[in-house]
Amino acid sequence: MTYCVGIEVDEGLVFAADTRTNASLDDVRVHRKLHVFEYPGDRAFVVMSAGNLATTQLAISRLRRDAEDPDARSLRSFRHLFEVAEYVGEVLVASQVQAGNSDPHGGINTQATLILGGQIAGERPGLYLVYPLGNCIAASPETPYLQIGESKYGKPILDRIVRPETALEDAARCAVLSLDSTIRSNLSVGLPVDLALIRAGDLRISQQVRLEADTPLYAEIHDTWSRKLENAVRTLPRFPWEPQAADTEEASALPPLPPRRVPAVKDPGDQSAQQ
Amino acid sequence: MTYCVGIEVDEGLVFAADTRTNASLDDVRVHRKLHVFEYPGDRAFVVMSAGNLATTQLAISRLRRDAEDPDARSLRSFRHLFEVAEYVGEVLVASQVQAGNSDPHGGINTQATLILGGQIAGERPGLYLVYPLGNCIAASPETPYLQIGESKYGKPILDRIVRPETALEDAARCAVLSLDSTIRSNLSVGLPVDLALIRAGDLRISQQVRLEADTPLYAEIHDTWSRKLENAVRTLPRFPWEPQAADTEEASALPPLPPRRVPAVKDPGDQSAQQ
Repeated sequence: MTYCVGIEVDEGLVFAADTRTNASLDDVRVHRKLHVFEYPGDRAFVVMSAGNLATTQLAISRLRRDAEDPDARSLRSFRHLFEVAEYVGEVLVASQVQAGNSDPHGGINTQATLILGGQIAGERPGLYLVYPLGNCIAASPETPYLQIGESKYGKPILDRIVRPETALEDAARCAVLSLDSTIRSNLSVGLPVDLALIRAGDLRISQQVRLEADTPLYAEIHDTWSRKLENAVRTLPRFPWEPQAADTEEASALPPLPPRRVPAVKDPGDQSAQQ
Repeated sequence: MTYCVGIEVDEGLVFAADTRTNASLDDVRVHRKLHVFEYPGDRAFVVMSAGNLATTQLAISRLRRDAEDPDARSLRSFRHLFEVAEYVGEVLVASQVQAGNSDPHGGINTQATLILGGQIAGERPGLYLVYPLGNCIAASPETPYLQIGESKYGKPILDRIVRPETALEDAARCAVLSLDSTIRSNLSVGLPVDLALIRAGDLRISQQVRLEADTPLYAEIHDTWSRKLENAVRTLPRFPWEPQAADTEEASALPPLPPRRVPAVKDPGDQSAQQ
Protein backbone atom coordinates (compact mmCIF):
# COMPACT_ATOMS: atom_id res chain seq x y z
CA MET A 1 0.00 0.00 0.00
CA THR A 2 0.94 3.66 -0.04
CA TYR A 3 -0.16 6.94 1.41
CA CYS A 4 0.31 10.27 -0.36
CA VAL A 5 -1.36 13.60 0.37
CA GLY A 6 -1.32 16.86 -1.55
CA ILE A 7 -2.54 20.10 0.02
CA GLU A 8 -3.42 23.35 -1.76
CA VAL A 9 -3.48 26.48 0.39
CA ASP A 10 -3.42 30.13 -0.59
CA GLU A 11 0.35 30.27 -0.10
CA GLY A 12 1.07 27.26 -2.32
CA LEU A 13 1.20 23.48 -2.48
CA VAL A 14 2.42 20.75 -0.13
CA PHE A 15 3.19 17.19 -1.19
CA ALA A 16 3.99 14.32 1.17
CA ALA A 17 4.45 10.65 0.37
CA ASP A 18 5.62 7.55 2.15
CA THR A 19 8.11 5.21 0.45
CA ARG A 20 6.96 1.70 1.35
CA THR A 21 5.91 -0.70 -1.35
CA ASN A 22 4.82 -4.22 -0.68
CA ALA A 23 3.85 -7.12 -2.90
CA SER A 24 2.88 -9.01 0.23
CA LEU A 25 3.59 -8.75 3.94
CA ASP A 26 6.96 -10.45 3.45
CA ASP A 27 7.98 -8.57 0.30
CA VAL A 28 8.47 -5.02 1.52
CA ARG A 29 10.76 -2.45 -0.10
CA VAL A 30 11.49 1.26 -0.23
CA HIS A 31 10.68 3.10 -3.47
CA ARG A 32 10.27 6.79 -4.15
CA LYS A 33 6.68 7.83 -4.91
CA LEU A 34 7.18 11.60 -5.01
CA HIS A 35 8.66 12.85 -8.27
CA VAL A 36 9.56 16.45 -9.14
CA PHE A 37 9.55 18.08 -12.57
CA GLU A 38 11.11 21.52 -12.39
CA TYR A 39 11.59 24.10 -15.14
CA PRO A 40 12.53 27.13 -13.02
CA GLY A 41 10.88 30.38 -13.90
CA ASP A 42 8.40 28.72 -16.24
CA ARG A 43 6.73 25.83 -14.42
CA ALA A 44 7.17 23.23 -11.70
CA PHE A 45 5.22 20.04 -10.97
CA VAL A 46 5.17 17.24 -8.45
CA VAL A 47 3.64 13.84 -9.27
CA MET A 48 2.91 11.30 -6.53
CA SER A 49 1.82 7.75 -7.24
CA ALA A 50 -0.13 4.88 -5.65
CA GLY A 51 -0.86 1.48 -7.14
CA ASN A 52 1.14 -0.81 -9.38
CA LEU A 53 4.79 0.20 -9.10
CA ALA A 54 5.78 -0.96 -12.60
CA THR A 55 2.96 1.15 -14.07
CA THR A 56 3.85 4.27 -12.13
CA GLN A 57 7.58 3.97 -12.85
CA LEU A 58 6.83 3.56 -16.56
CA ALA A 59 4.51 6.57 -16.52
CA ILE A 60 7.10 8.74 -14.72
CA SER A 61 9.83 7.67 -17.16
CA ARG A 62 7.62 8.59 -20.11
CA LEU A 63 6.80 11.97 -18.61
CA ARG A 64 10.55 12.65 -18.29
CA ARG A 65 11.34 11.43 -21.80
CA ASP A 66 8.59 13.53 -23.36
CA ALA A 67 9.70 16.62 -21.46
CA GLU A 68 13.17 16.35 -23.01
CA ASP A 69 11.75 16.42 -26.53
CA PRO A 70 10.94 20.03 -27.51
CA ASP A 71 8.55 18.83 -30.23
CA ALA A 72 6.57 16.36 -28.10
CA ARG A 73 3.38 16.93 -26.18
CA SER A 74 4.80 17.08 -22.70
CA LEU A 75 4.68 18.66 -19.25
CA ARG A 76 6.39 21.65 -20.90
CA SER A 77 4.10 22.09 -23.90
CA PHE A 78 0.77 23.02 -22.33
CA ARG A 79 -0.40 26.45 -21.28
CA HIS A 80 -2.85 25.31 -18.60
CA LEU A 81 -2.57 22.94 -15.69
CA PHE A 82 -5.81 21.13 -16.53
CA GLU A 83 -4.28 20.24 -19.92
CA VAL A 84 -1.21 18.88 -18.16
CA ALA A 85 -3.51 16.79 -15.94
CA GLU A 86 -5.27 15.42 -19.01
CA TYR A 87 -1.94 14.56 -20.64
CA VAL A 88 -0.65 12.86 -17.46
CA GLY A 89 -3.89 10.85 -17.45
CA GLU A 90 -3.21 9.72 -21.05
CA VAL A 91 0.32 8.64 -20.15
CA LEU A 92 -1.02 6.78 -17.12
CA VAL A 93 -3.66 4.91 -19.12
CA ALA A 94 -1.12 3.97 -21.80
CA SER A 95 1.26 2.66 -19.14
CA GLN A 96 -1.48 0.54 -17.58
CA VAL A 97 -2.60 -0.86 -20.94
CA GLN A 98 0.93 -1.89 -21.89
CA ALA A 99 1.35 -3.92 -18.70
CA GLY A 100 -2.21 -5.28 -18.84
CA ASN A 101 -1.80 -6.57 -22.41
CA SER A 102 0.80 -9.05 -21.25
CA ASP A 103 -1.61 -10.55 -18.72
CA PRO A 104 -4.46 -12.09 -20.74
CA HIS A 105 -6.05 -13.57 -17.62
CA GLY A 106 -6.25 -10.19 -15.93
CA GLY A 107 -5.07 -11.61 -12.63
CA ILE A 108 -2.73 -8.72 -11.88
CA ASN A 109 -4.02 -5.25 -11.16
CA THR A 110 -1.83 -2.86 -13.16
CA GLN A 111 -3.83 0.23 -12.21
CA ALA A 112 -2.38 3.26 -10.55
CA THR A 113 -3.62 6.60 -9.24
CA LEU A 114 -1.65 9.83 -9.28
CA ILE A 115 -1.67 13.21 -7.60
CA LEU A 116 -0.38 16.02 -9.84
CA GLY A 117 0.24 19.51 -8.55
CA GLY A 118 2.18 22.52 -9.68
CA GLN A 119 2.14 25.93 -11.23
CA ILE A 120 2.59 27.28 -14.76
CA ALA A 121 3.68 30.91 -15.21
CA GLY A 122 0.57 33.09 -15.54
CA GLU A 123 -1.68 30.74 -13.56
CA ARG A 124 -2.11 30.13 -9.87
CA PRO A 125 -0.98 26.77 -8.44
CA GLY A 126 -3.32 23.80 -8.76
CA LEU A 127 -3.72 20.24 -7.54
CA TYR A 128 -5.29 17.26 -9.33
CA LEU A 129 -6.04 13.63 -8.57
CA VAL A 130 -5.64 11.51 -11.73
CA TYR A 131 -7.70 8.30 -11.70
CA PRO A 132 -6.72 5.01 -13.37
CA LEU A 133 -9.16 5.83 -16.19
CA GLY A 134 -7.13 8.96 -16.95
CA ASN A 135 -9.82 11.37 -15.82
CA CYS A 136 -9.16 13.73 -12.96
CA ILE A 137 -10.58 16.01 -10.27
CA ALA A 138 -9.15 19.22 -8.81
CA ALA A 139 -8.82 20.21 -5.17
CA SER A 140 -11.08 23.09 -4.15
CA PRO A 141 -11.22 25.68 -1.35
CA GLU A 142 -13.82 23.52 0.41
CA THR A 143 -11.65 20.38 0.06
CA PRO A 144 -8.13 21.76 -0.12
CA TYR A 145 -6.40 18.36 -0.08
CA LEU A 146 -6.30 15.15 -2.11
CA GLN A 147 -5.20 11.72 -0.91
CA ILE A 148 -4.27 8.45 -2.62
CA GLY A 149 -3.61 5.03 -1.10
CA GLU A 150 -4.30 4.23 2.55
CA SER A 151 -6.13 7.47 3.18
CA LYS A 152 -8.46 6.94 6.15
CA TYR A 153 -6.08 7.14 9.13
CA GLY A 154 -4.64 10.46 8.03
CA LYS A 155 -7.90 12.11 6.99
CA PRO A 156 -9.24 13.43 10.34
CA ILE A 157 -6.31 15.74 11.02
CA LEU A 158 -6.60 17.19 7.51
CA ASP A 159 -10.36 17.62 7.91
CA ARG A 160 -9.89 19.42 11.21
CA ILE A 161 -7.02 21.71 10.31
CA VAL A 162 -6.37 22.42 6.65
CA ARG A 163 -8.08 25.44 5.13
CA PRO A 164 -7.02 27.76 2.30
CA GLU A 165 -5.81 30.30 4.89
CA THR A 166 -3.51 27.80 6.62
CA ALA A 167 0.14 28.87 6.38
CA LEU A 168 2.18 26.77 3.94
CA GLU A 169 4.57 25.41 6.56
CA ASP A 170 1.72 24.65 8.96
CA ALA A 171 0.05 22.72 6.15
CA ALA A 172 3.34 20.86 5.68
CA ARG A 173 3.50 20.01 9.40
CA CYS A 174 -0.08 18.80 9.13
CA ALA A 175 0.84 16.61 6.14
CA VAL A 176 3.71 15.09 8.11
CA LEU A 177 1.34 14.38 11.02
CA SER A 178 -1.15 12.84 8.62
CA LEU A 179 1.61 10.56 7.30
CA ASP A 180 2.81 9.76 10.81
CA SER A 181 -0.69 8.83 11.98
CA THR A 182 -0.94 6.43 9.07
CA ILE A 183 2.51 4.97 9.59
CA ARG A 184 1.77 4.31 13.28
CA SER A 185 -1.56 2.66 12.58
CA ASN A 186 -0.85 0.67 9.41
CA LEU A 187 2.09 -1.54 8.51
CA SER A 188 1.73 -1.02 4.77
CA VAL A 189 2.80 2.62 4.98
CA GLY A 190 6.37 3.36 6.09
CA LEU A 191 9.26 5.74 6.54
CA PRO A 192 11.08 7.63 5.13
CA VAL A 193 8.63 10.39 4.17
CA ASP A 194 9.28 12.62 1.16
CA LEU A 195 8.07 16.20 1.45
CA ALA A 196 8.01 18.92 -1.21
CA LEU A 197 6.65 22.48 -1.16
CA ILE A 198 5.85 24.77 -4.07
CA ARG A 199 5.27 28.32 -2.86
CA ALA A 200 2.87 30.24 -5.10
CA GLY A 201 4.83 32.31 -7.61
CA ASP A 202 8.17 30.58 -7.04
CA LEU A 203 7.79 28.54 -10.26
CA ARG A 204 10.23 25.99 -8.86
CA ILE A 205 10.30 23.36 -6.10
CA SER A 206 10.64 25.72 -3.13
CA GLN A 207 11.68 23.07 -0.64
CA GLN A 208 12.26 19.33 -0.79
CA VAL A 209 13.27 17.14 2.14
CA ARG A 210 13.30 13.48 3.07
CA LEU A 211 12.30 12.81 6.67
CA GLU A 212 13.79 9.78 8.40
CA ALA A 213 12.89 8.61 11.88
CA ASP A 214 15.84 10.57 13.32
CA THR A 215 15.23 13.80 11.36
CA PRO A 216 14.65 16.43 14.09
CA LEU A 217 11.11 17.36 13.00
CA TYR A 218 10.07 13.76 12.73
CA ALA A 219 11.73 12.71 15.97
CA GLU A 220 10.12 15.63 17.76
CA ILE A 221 6.71 14.68 16.46
CA HIS A 222 7.23 11.28 17.98
CA ASP A 223 8.47 12.73 21.24
CA THR A 224 5.96 15.51 21.73
CA TRP A 225 2.86 15.11 19.59
CA SER A 226 1.26 12.45 21.78
CA ARG A 227 1.94 14.61 24.81
CA LYS A 228 0.46 17.69 23.15
CA LEU A 229 -2.62 15.68 22.22
CA GLU A 230 -2.91 14.25 25.71
CA ASN A 231 -2.79 17.72 27.19
CA ALA A 232 -5.40 18.90 24.71
CA VAL A 233 -7.68 15.98 25.64
CA ARG A 234 -7.34 16.88 29.30
CA THR A 235 -8.39 20.47 28.63
CA LEU A 236 -11.67 19.41 27.02
CA PRO A 237 -14.78 20.03 29.15
CA ARG A 238 -15.36 17.81 32.19
CA PHE A 239 -18.22 15.33 32.20
CA PRO A 240 -21.15 16.39 34.43
CA TRP A 241 -20.15 13.89 37.13
CA GLU A 242 -16.52 14.99 37.32
CA PRO A 243 -15.21 17.68 39.70
CA GLN A 244 -15.07 20.83 37.59
CA ALA A 245 -11.58 22.20 37.07
CA ALA A 246 -11.29 25.85 38.16
CA ASP A 247 -10.00 26.67 34.70
CA THR A 248 -10.32 23.91 32.17
CA GLU A 249 -7.69 25.58 30.00
CA GLU A 250 -5.14 25.30 32.77
CA ALA A 251 -3.66 21.90 32.09
CA SER A 252 -0.91 22.60 34.57
CA ALA A 253 -3.46 22.36 37.39
CA LEU A 254 -4.16 18.75 36.43
CA PRO A 255 -2.14 15.94 37.97
CA PRO A 256 1.02 15.30 35.94
CA LEU A 257 0.76 12.80 33.11
CA PRO A 258 2.54 9.49 33.62
CA PRO A 259 5.75 9.23 31.57
CA ARG A 260 5.23 7.85 28.08
CA ARG A 261 8.60 6.15 27.94
CA VAL A 262 9.50 3.95 30.85
CA PRO A 263 12.65 1.93 31.48
CA ALA A 264 12.57 -1.79 30.77
CA VAL A 265 9.91 -3.32 32.99
CA LYS A 266 9.31 -6.75 34.37
CA ASP A 267 7.23 -8.79 31.95
CA PRO A 268 3.69 -8.37 33.31
CA GLY A 269 2.99 -11.98 32.33
CA ASP A 270 -0.08 -13.58 30.93
CA GLN A 271 -2.54 -12.72 33.68
CA SER A 272 -2.74 -9.18 32.42
CA ALA A 273 -4.47 -10.22 29.20
CA GLN A 274 -7.62 -12.30 28.99
CA GLN A 275 -9.33 -13.78 32.01
CA MET B 1 -21.68 1.03 8.66
CA THR B 2 -20.96 1.57 12.33
CA TYR B 3 -18.15 2.59 14.59
CA CYS B 4 -17.79 1.33 18.17
CA VAL B 5 -14.76 1.46 20.43
CA GLY B 6 -14.12 -0.13 23.83
CA ILE B 7 -11.19 0.94 26.00
CA GLU B 8 -9.74 -0.90 29.00
CA VAL B 9 -7.62 1.17 31.36
CA ASP B 10 -6.52 0.47 34.90
CA GLU B 11 -9.43 2.49 36.29
CA GLY B 12 -12.08 0.64 34.30
CA LEU B 13 -13.82 0.37 30.94
CA VAL B 14 -15.12 2.89 28.40
CA PHE B 15 -17.62 2.08 25.67
CA ALA B 16 -18.63 4.42 22.86
CA ALA B 17 -20.83 3.71 19.85
CA ASP B 18 -22.45 5.67 17.08
CA THR B 19 -26.10 5.05 16.22
CA ARG B 20 -26.29 5.23 12.43
CA THR B 21 -27.39 2.23 10.42
CA ASN B 22 -27.71 2.23 6.70
CA ALA B 23 -28.92 -0.32 4.20
CA SER B 24 -27.78 2.03 1.47
CA LEU B 25 -26.91 5.72 1.20
CA ASP B 26 -30.60 6.59 0.98
CA ASP B 27 -31.81 4.22 3.71
CA VAL B 28 -30.29 5.70 6.84
CA ARG B 29 -31.73 5.28 10.35
CA VAL B 30 -30.83 5.64 14.01
CA HIS B 31 -30.55 2.46 16.06
CA ARG B 32 -28.90 1.85 19.40
CA LYS B 33 -25.77 -0.29 19.21
CA LEU B 34 -24.65 0.00 22.84
CA HIS B 35 -26.55 -2.31 25.21
CA VAL B 36 -26.11 -2.56 28.97
CA PHE B 37 -26.66 -5.62 31.18
CA GLU B 38 -26.46 -4.64 34.81
CA TYR B 39 -26.78 -6.82 37.93
CA PRO B 40 -25.56 -4.37 40.57
CA GLY B 41 -23.13 -5.70 43.12
CA ASP B 42 -22.59 -8.92 41.18
CA ARG B 43 -21.73 -8.08 37.58
CA ALA B 44 -22.21 -5.56 34.80
CA PHE B 45 -21.66 -5.86 31.06
CA VAL B 46 -21.86 -3.71 27.97
CA VAL B 47 -22.30 -5.25 24.50
CA MET B 48 -21.75 -3.17 21.35
CA SER B 49 -22.57 -4.43 17.87
CA ALA B 50 -21.57 -3.92 14.24
CA GLY B 51 -22.90 -5.74 11.21
CA ASN B 52 -26.33 -7.06 10.31
CA LEU B 53 -28.86 -5.24 12.50
CA ALA B 54 -31.43 -8.07 12.53
CA THR B 55 -28.73 -10.48 13.73
CA THR B 56 -27.48 -8.19 16.47
CA GLN B 57 -30.97 -7.32 17.72
CA LEU B 58 -31.85 -11.03 17.86
CA ALA B 59 -28.65 -11.81 19.74
CA ILE B 60 -29.26 -9.00 22.27
CA SER B 61 -32.88 -10.15 22.80
CA ARG B 62 -31.71 -13.71 23.46
CA LEU B 63 -29.07 -12.53 25.90
CA ARG B 64 -31.80 -10.64 27.81
CA ARG B 65 -34.22 -13.56 27.73
CA ASP B 66 -31.62 -16.04 28.98
CA ALA B 67 -30.58 -13.71 31.79
CA GLU B 68 -34.15 -13.68 33.13
CA ASP B 69 -34.21 -17.47 33.41
CA PRO B 70 -32.37 -18.51 36.59
CA ASP B 71 -31.84 -22.03 35.22
CA ALA B 72 -30.46 -21.05 31.84
CA ARG B 73 -26.84 -20.59 30.77
CA SER B 74 -26.74 -16.83 30.68
CA LEU B 75 -24.74 -13.67 31.35
CA ARG B 76 -25.52 -14.32 35.04
CA SER B 77 -24.51 -17.98 35.25
CA PHE B 78 -20.76 -17.90 34.55
CA ARG B 79 -18.00 -17.27 37.02
CA HIS B 80 -15.46 -15.89 34.53
CA LEU B 81 -15.63 -13.23 31.87
CA PHE B 82 -13.98 -15.43 29.23
CA GLU B 83 -16.85 -17.92 29.68
CA VAL B 84 -19.34 -15.10 29.19
CA ALA B 85 -17.49 -14.12 25.99
CA GLU B 86 -17.68 -17.72 24.75
CA TYR B 87 -21.41 -17.84 25.52
CA VAL B 88 -22.04 -14.50 23.78
CA GLY B 89 -20.20 -15.95 20.77
CA GLU B 90 -22.51 -18.98 20.75
CA VAL B 91 -25.59 -16.75 20.85
CA LEU B 92 -24.15 -14.62 18.05
CA VAL B 93 -23.42 -17.63 15.83
CA ALA B 94 -26.92 -19.07 16.45
CA SER B 95 -28.50 -15.70 15.56
CA GLN B 96 -26.53 -15.52 12.32
CA VAL B 97 -27.39 -19.10 11.36
CA GLN B 98 -31.11 -18.54 11.92
CA ALA B 99 -31.16 -15.57 9.55
CA GLY B 100 -28.80 -17.22 7.06
CA ASN B 101 -30.98 -20.37 6.77
CA SER B 102 -33.79 -18.33 5.22
CA ASP B 103 -31.49 -17.13 2.46
CA PRO B 104 -30.48 -20.21 0.47
CA HIS B 105 -28.63 -18.12 -2.12
CA GLY B 106 -26.45 -16.51 0.52
CA GLY B 107 -26.84 -13.08 -1.06
CA ILE B 108 -27.30 -11.28 2.25
CA ASN B 109 -24.52 -11.01 4.79
CA THR B 110 -26.06 -11.81 8.18
CA GLN B 111 -22.77 -11.63 10.05
CA ALA B 112 -22.13 -9.37 12.98
CA THR B 113 -19.24 -8.55 15.29
CA LEU B 114 -19.54 -7.62 18.95
CA ILE B 115 -17.51 -5.96 21.66
CA LEU B 116 -18.23 -7.32 25.14
CA GLY B 117 -16.84 -5.74 28.26
CA GLY B 118 -17.62 -5.81 31.94
CA GLN B 119 -16.73 -7.10 35.33
CA ILE B 120 -17.80 -10.06 37.47
CA ALA B 121 -17.36 -9.85 41.25
CA GLY B 122 -13.99 -11.32 42.18
CA GLU B 123 -12.36 -10.58 38.82
CA ARG B 124 -10.92 -7.43 37.34
CA PRO B 125 -12.76 -5.82 34.40
CA GLY B 126 -12.15 -7.22 30.91
CA LEU B 127 -12.86 -6.42 27.28
CA TYR B 128 -13.42 -8.83 24.39
CA LEU B 129 -14.02 -8.62 20.65
CA VAL B 130 -16.39 -11.42 19.54
CA TYR B 131 -15.99 -12.39 15.87
CA PRO B 132 -18.78 -13.66 13.58
CA LEU B 133 -17.41 -17.21 14.06
CA GLY B 134 -18.07 -16.91 17.79
CA ASN B 135 -14.40 -16.87 18.76
CA CYS B 136 -12.97 -13.89 20.54
CA ILE B 137 -9.86 -11.93 21.54
CA ALA B 138 -9.20 -9.87 24.66
CA ALA B 139 -7.76 -6.37 24.92
CA SER B 140 -4.30 -6.25 26.49
CA PRO B 141 -2.11 -3.65 28.21
CA GLU B 142 -0.20 -3.22 24.94
CA THR B 143 -3.43 -2.78 22.95
CA PRO B 144 -5.89 -1.42 25.50
CA TYR B 145 -8.71 -0.82 23.03
CA LEU B 146 -10.87 -2.77 20.58
CA GLN B 147 -12.79 -1.39 17.60
CA ILE B 148 -15.53 -2.70 15.34
CA GLY B 149 -16.96 -1.21 12.17
CA GLU B 150 -15.40 1.78 10.41
CA SER B 151 -12.30 1.75 12.57
CA LYS B 152 -9.50 3.46 10.61
CA TYR B 153 -10.33 7.16 11.03
CA GLY B 154 -10.55 6.92 14.80
CA LYS B 155 -7.52 4.69 15.34
CA PRO B 156 -4.65 7.23 15.33
CA ILE B 157 -5.90 9.18 18.35
CA LEU B 158 -6.31 5.94 20.30
CA ASP B 159 -2.85 4.76 19.26
CA ARG B 160 -1.32 8.05 20.37
CA ILE B 161 -3.09 8.51 23.69
CA VAL B 162 -4.63 5.49 25.33
CA ARG B 163 -2.50 3.54 27.76
CA PRO B 164 -3.43 1.50 30.84
CA GLU B 165 -2.47 4.48 33.05
CA THR B 166 -4.81 6.89 31.24
CA ALA B 167 -7.51 8.22 33.58
CA LEU B 168 -10.96 6.76 32.93
CA GLU B 169 -12.58 10.06 32.00
CA ASP B 170 -9.64 11.04 29.78
CA ALA B 171 -10.06 7.70 28.01
CA ALA B 172 -13.76 8.56 27.62
CA ARG B 173 -12.90 11.96 26.10
CA CYS B 174 -10.50 10.17 23.79
CA ALA B 175 -13.26 7.74 22.76
CA VAL B 176 -15.58 10.66 21.99
CA LEU B 177 -12.85 12.28 19.88
CA SER B 178 -12.28 9.00 18.08
CA LEU B 179 -16.00 8.85 17.28
CA ASP B 180 -16.07 12.49 16.27
CA SER B 181 -13.11 12.06 13.90
CA THR B 182 -14.94 9.20 12.23
CA ILE B 183 -18.25 11.05 12.05
CA ARG B 184 -16.58 14.06 10.41
CA SER B 185 -14.73 11.97 7.87
CA ASN B 186 -17.29 9.28 6.97
CA LEU B 187 -20.99 9.58 6.22
CA SER B 188 -21.82 6.05 7.34
CA VAL B 189 -21.13 6.86 11.00
CA GLY B 190 -23.41 9.37 12.71
CA LEU B 191 -24.67 11.10 15.85
CA PRO B 192 -25.91 10.66 18.51
CA VAL B 193 -23.06 8.90 20.34
CA ASP B 194 -23.77 6.52 23.23
CA LEU B 195 -21.17 6.45 25.97
CA ALA B 196 -20.94 4.12 28.99
CA LEU B 197 -18.31 3.77 31.72
CA ILE B 198 -17.72 0.90 34.13
CA ARG B 199 -15.34 1.93 36.88
CA ALA B 200 -13.34 -1.03 38.23
CA GLY B 201 -15.02 -2.38 41.34
CA ASP B 202 -18.32 -0.56 40.86
CA LEU B 203 -20.00 -3.75 39.55
CA ARG B 204 -22.60 -1.58 37.82
CA ILE B 205 -22.75 0.83 34.88
CA SER B 206 -21.01 3.77 36.53
CA GLN B 207 -22.07 6.36 33.97
CA GLN B 208 -24.16 6.27 30.82
CA VAL B 209 -24.85 9.25 28.58
CA ARG B 210 -26.07 9.95 25.07
CA LEU B 211 -24.23 12.78 23.33
CA GLU B 212 -26.10 14.83 20.76
CA ALA B 213 -24.59 17.58 18.64
CA ASP B 214 -25.72 20.19 21.18
CA THR B 215 -24.57 18.32 24.31
CA PRO B 216 -22.01 20.68 25.92
CA LEU B 217 -19.06 18.28 25.72
CA TYR B 218 -19.79 17.42 22.13
CA ALA B 219 -20.44 21.02 21.09
CA GLU B 220 -17.23 22.10 22.79
CA ILE B 221 -15.25 19.46 20.96
CA HIS B 222 -16.55 20.91 17.75
CA ASP B 223 -15.79 24.45 18.83
CA THR B 224 -12.38 24.00 20.35
CA TRP B 225 -10.73 20.75 19.32
CA SER B 226 -9.69 21.96 15.87
CA ARG B 227 -8.27 25.11 17.45
CA LYS B 228 -6.36 23.10 20.06
CA LEU B 229 -4.95 20.89 17.31
CA GLU B 230 -4.04 23.89 15.17
CA ASN B 231 -2.17 25.44 18.07
CA ALA B 232 -0.40 22.15 18.72
CA VAL B 233 0.63 21.91 15.05
CA ARG B 234 2.06 25.43 15.22
CA THR B 235 4.17 24.53 18.24
CA LEU B 236 5.88 21.66 16.42
CA PRO B 237 9.51 22.33 15.42
CA ARG B 238 10.18 24.76 12.55
CA PHE B 239 11.55 23.46 9.27
CA PRO B 240 15.24 24.33 8.72
CA TRP B 241 14.35 27.09 6.24
CA GLU B 242 11.83 28.82 8.51
CA PRO B 243 12.71 31.62 10.93
CA GLN B 244 13.16 29.92 14.29
CA ALA B 245 10.65 30.94 16.93
CA ALA B 246 12.32 32.20 20.12
CA ASP B 247 10.34 29.61 22.07
CA THR B 248 8.59 27.03 19.97
CA GLU B 249 6.25 26.24 22.84
CA GLU B 250 5.00 29.80 22.91
CA ALA B 251 2.11 29.64 20.49
CA SER B 252 1.01 33.10 21.60
CA ALA B 253 4.06 34.59 19.87
CA LEU B 254 2.77 33.29 16.55
CA PRO B 255 0.48 35.43 14.40
CA PRO B 256 -3.16 34.87 15.37
CA LEU B 257 -5.00 32.09 13.60
CA PRO B 258 -7.69 33.14 11.12
CA PRO B 259 -11.23 32.60 12.46
CA ARG B 260 -12.62 29.12 11.76
CA ARG B 261 -16.18 30.32 11.45
CA VAL B 262 -16.80 33.24 9.15
CA PRO B 263 -20.04 35.03 8.33
CA ALA B 264 -21.79 34.20 5.06
CA VAL B 265 -19.39 35.02 2.25
CA LYS B 266 -19.81 35.88 -1.38
CA ASP B 267 -19.81 32.71 -3.49
CA PRO B 268 -16.18 32.50 -4.65
CA GLY B 269 -17.45 31.16 -7.98
CA ASP B 270 -16.06 28.53 -10.26
CA GLN B 271 -12.66 30.04 -10.92
CA SER B 272 -11.47 28.97 -7.50
CA ALA B 273 -11.61 25.28 -8.37
CA GLN B 274 -9.90 23.69 -11.36
CA GLN B 275 -7.97 25.67 -13.94
